[in-house]
Amino acid sequence: MRSFTFYERFSRAFHENSSLSKLLVVLTVSGGGIAAYAEANSESQSPRVDLINGSEGDGKRKKVVVLGTGWAGTSFLKNLKNPSYDVQVISPRNYFAFTPLLPSVTCGTVEARSVVEPIRRIVRKKNLNVLFSEAECIGIDAKNKKVYCRSNLGNNKEEFSVDYDVLVISVGARVNTFNTPGVEEHCHFLKEVEDAQRIRETVIENFEKASLPNLSDEERKRILHFVVVGGGPTGVEFAAELHDFVTEDLVKLYPKVMDVVKITLLEAADHILNMFDKRITAFAEEKFHRDGIDLKTGSMVVKVSDKEISTKERNGEISSIPYGMAVWSTGIGTRPLIMDFMKQIGQTNRRALATDEWLRVEGHDNIYAVGDCATINQRKVMEDIAAIFSKADKDKSGTLTVKEFKEVIDDICERYPQVELYLKNKKMKDIVELMKESKGDVEKESIELSIEEFKKALSQVDSQMKNLPATAQVAAQQGSYLADCFNRMEECERNPEGPLRFRGEGRHRFHAFRYKHLGQFAPLGGEQTAAQLPGDWVSIGRSSQWLWYSVYASKQVSWRTRALVITDWTRRYIFGRDSSGI
Amino acid sequence: MRSFTFYERFSRAFHENSSLSKLLVVLTVSGGGIAAYAEANSESQSPRVDLINGSEGDGKRKKVVVLGTGWAGTSFLKNLKNPSYDVQVISPRNYFAFTPLLPSVTCGTVEARSVVEPIRRIVRKKNLNVLFSEAECIGIDAKNKKVYCRSNLGNNKEEFSVDYDVLVISVGARVNTFNTPGVEEHCHFLKEVEDAQRIRETVIENFEKASLPNLSDEERKRILHFVVVGGGPTGVEFAAELHDFVTEDLVKLYPKVMDVVKITLLEAADHILNMFDKRITAFAEEKFHRDGIDLKTGSMVVKVSDKEISTKERNGEISSIPYGMAVWSTGIGTRPLIMDFMKQIGQTNRRALATDEWLRVEGHDNIYAVGDCATINQRKVMEDIAAIFSKADKDKSGTLTVKEFKEVIDDICERYPQVELYLKNKKMKDIVELMKESKGDVEKESIELSIEEFKKALSQVDSQMKNLPATAQVAAQQGSYLADCFNRMEECERNPEGPLRFRGEGRHRFHAFRYKHLGQFAPLGGEQTAAQLPGDWVSIGRSSQWLWYSVYASKQVSWRTRALVITDWTRRYIFGRDSSGI
Repeated sequence: MRSFTFYERFSRAFHENSSLSKLLVVLTVSGGGIAAYAEANSESQSPRVDLINGSEGDGKRKKVVVLGTGWAGTSFLKNLKNPSYDVQVISPRNYFAFTPLLPSVTCGTVEARSVVEPIRRIVRKKNLNVLFSEAECIGIDAKNKKVYCRSNLGNNKEEFSVDYDVLVISVGARVNTFNTPGVEEHCHFLKEVEDAQRIRETVIENFEKASLPNLSDEERKRILHFVVVGGGPTGVEFAAELHDFVTEDLVKLYPKVMDVVKITLLEAADHILNMFDKRITAFAEEKFHRDGIDLKTGSMVVKVSDKEISTKERNGEISSIPYGMAVWSTGIGTRPLIMDFMKQIGQTNRRALATDEWLRVEGHDNIYAVGDCATINQRKVMEDIAAIFSKADKDKSGTLTVKEFKEVIDDICERYPQVELYLKNKKMKDIVELMKESKGDVEKESIELSIEEFKKALSQVDSQMKNLPATAQVAAQQGSYLADCFNRMEECERNPEGPLRFRGEGRHRFHAFRYKHLGQFAPLGGEQTAAQLPGDWVSIGRSSQWLWYSVYASKQVSWRTRALVITDWTRRYIFGRDSSGI
Repeated sequence: MRSFTFYERFSRAFHENSSLSKLLVVLTVSGGGIAAYAEANSESQSPRVDLINGSEGDGKRKKVVVLGTGWAGTSFLKNLKNPSYDVQVISPRNYFAFTPLLPSVTCGTVEARSVVEPIRRIVRKKNLNVLFSEAECIGIDAKNKKVYCRSNLGNNKEEFSVDYDVLVISVGARVNTFNTPGVEEHCHFLKEVEDAQRIRETVIENFEKASLPNLSDEERKRILHFVVVGGGPTGVEFAAELHDFVTEDLVKLYPKVMDVVKITLLEAADHILNMFDKRITAFAEEKFHRDGIDLKTGSMVVKVSDKEISTKERNGEISSIPYGMAVWSTGIGTRPLIMDFMKQIGQTNRRALATDEWLRVEGHDNIYAVGDCATINQRKVMEDIAAIFSKADKDKSGTLTVKEFKEVIDDICERYPQVELYLKNKKMKDIVELMKESKGDVEKESIELSIEEFKKALSQVDSQMKNLPATAQVAAQQGSYLADCFNRMEECERNPEGPLRFRGEGRHRFHAFRYKHLGQFAPLGGEQTAAQLPGDWVSIGRSSQWLWYSVYASKQVSWRTRALVITDWTRRYIFGRDSSGI
């Protein structure tokens, strides 16, 4: 994945020289036009692929059905190169949306159209047989290898079914309302492009509403009270964007109502931006305080009506806040399609579809699940401890020598990444030190472990297992990993490159998926951004904002959206944000 | 009006050197950034005006209420400089839309947001007391000097009334369906920005629909049949834009369905673009033929159902055409508000509000009507012939001498512009020739006309009266004329500058409104545009397209929209049009 390696190189360079970031933006801007034009020209010469009827029935080609065109699905499609598959994509949206820019869309810093790329544009450049259908998957029948779909174009809903040999589920998640009454009816979400557009309309609408004559001061105050529920990165970024929009642009057009505008951020926990470093949380809270954004932590929303939000404070007190617009951004829940499917395959009481480390749905070798709708069910060392021991004990002596152990160390570490994390945490150099610890003070080379000693040595290792966060970064890496597996399927069937199968024979076909965290941004408004980069490196301020611009520009899915986003930023810089009610 | 004089100078320059046009576009593009930035900076220092509560009750200031923010209303507001009025603007849209670019918006050649400018931005730069309310006027009470309004923001509709001293009606017109059954329900219009956005969505939607599996060939063909009803400039431009969108962009993404795409243009008359020169009509028809756009003239739509359009041909035959999307663009009708008001003031059986030549609603000195909702009821010479004669006959001799006549000639020509048109048509040098004609072959200086001879001389003059076309150009000129009158109200009350009052004493306060036709464009797709410029000068082809770009860029209401439109054109040129379904 080009953009991520770019990011890596970049973040390293940034350590060395912080002015590099500004230079990069300039380069990205000036390079865009020419490169993009070259691309546009080459496109017109690319072969046209059959987008309606996949070539079926030659008996050899496998049909891969991909559900969804979010980060995971699009990353899979973008990286898929193996021409031996027939691919059918089913998604209710015919475009990929660069969701990290949605908060910018809510206030017109970036236009909605600039963050989307038609999925047909993404797939057509390749020599692949890809068919796209704009429809929603409403059911998966794993037994008969079939998915049921419903198109929702115009007024008439058509239903149809599609057969698959291999299924890639990447439908994402939905907003989690925690069944709070009134949220669905009265709150805005910030998950789809349409949500962002509706928020923008409503903000302007409320300013116009508050400017009508014959309104009481109280009513005017209520209409211009914007409430954000949830202090995660999305909620915080939206609150910051809205504050900028109000103080930089709307203040000039609606000066009379400015003194009653209020932004409130409600967070049930003690602090906002929990997943970030404490320094970032503290900076963000302090900045919001300075900006006059009312931050209420420890405040849980229990009910939403059309004009009031009821919250429960820590002390059990229930209070009501009159509001004009509310944005709900508290985390993600499971889509009904996934819940139904999990019931069907016996995975109940889970938040998402469980897959193995190769992203296959457990028990279904031909179904993969990537992105927010799935979690990797990392195998525990202790579950396989006997198999590992017996595989490592080559001479079947009943004890493990250091030599025997060293031969399988790499495979163990790959198969069970928690081992490495545990060692790192314990500041141990290698697994032999772990053996040494359990055996006491003996010479390294003469260590021999019985199965019981081996179990004891590894007993704490599984405590290091963690679920991956539900982020675009994880989804994109999973999609690209899976595409890479598909690309090298035939090759790896012949020469498996994965770790040893401890409970079976031979090796796994592929290396297991391994997530590489590349850092995270939290834009805080006023050209101030907090960045948490790998190695717990924290950067806050204007230079991080430039880093943010550079990374987000470079991560765009095409040169087209890259140019669009950059010109949008430029337009905003020169002319401000538009406040027309369209 | 800056943009129009620019146009004039330009069209003259264009006669001399056609390559100038290209240069101008480049200049416009490169100049935009700097000038725009300067503007953005100066804006932030401009005084803030009270946009909610106009300063009322000081007893001296007159309250002007403006209904509508289309071409006429916005042009009025933009040119109004007299700070002695309190202005309240009431419009269901808080922005001005550059409607001539709407056909470009339907296919994404230009973005919707690039053709709109918030009305608050337009008025705030001035030292005026302007109040804006986003609401629709639902009733005018001329007797009590009150308008009734309804805001339509969000879900709740609020009603309120506003008093006025002076009313400017500029609400425009609505689409005329000629009561054809099914048109309202099934056809798209192309009058508002939202219409253009919906058309864009529907075009993409239909391409996606046609790409779904399990569809019969017939159904696929129907879905991709786009029908345009009405061969006026808007319908023709939309058909051309759609053809470009399909052949330049969609063909790459939907290659499989391309052979069933069809565009049909239905026109009830014998030719399209009736109001243009015959050369333009012929070129357009020939080009559409070459492009494969099916042009059906003499075909009147009599009924529209959800999947079929019924037409009546010249021979009386009724036939049915299956269609996927229809755009109705056949001309304009009267808004209900205006119909009600006309009934109230006794103007029935008219298409639009009748005003005098000073744009005042007849019989209501404090109500003005401009733009598409009004027509100027030009006074006939023959109605006033006795008054004119008596006024001209200074010595009350019962006959008019040439000397007497010459003294009032200018006033006659200004008050009754049809006189000048008649002379021009008859190729006469001045009105004395007309007198001479009625008198026979006598010496010029000794001509003396009796009232009967005078009547005879002018009897044919009124045949030259014409209604102004319902165009943006007329509306904009009326708005700016009216603003100019308001700006110089006090001055002209003291020193009237208008023509003689033939039926009263003294002079009219102002010169009468006179429309200056500056030419018209008909973009025909494929970078080909037809231009009909003053003096029946016709230009067709690529150079006119560049003229079109230049004029439309220069006519933009602000530097912001100018830059936006130009960058949109550039983006389109480099990356093509977007086909995401948002």
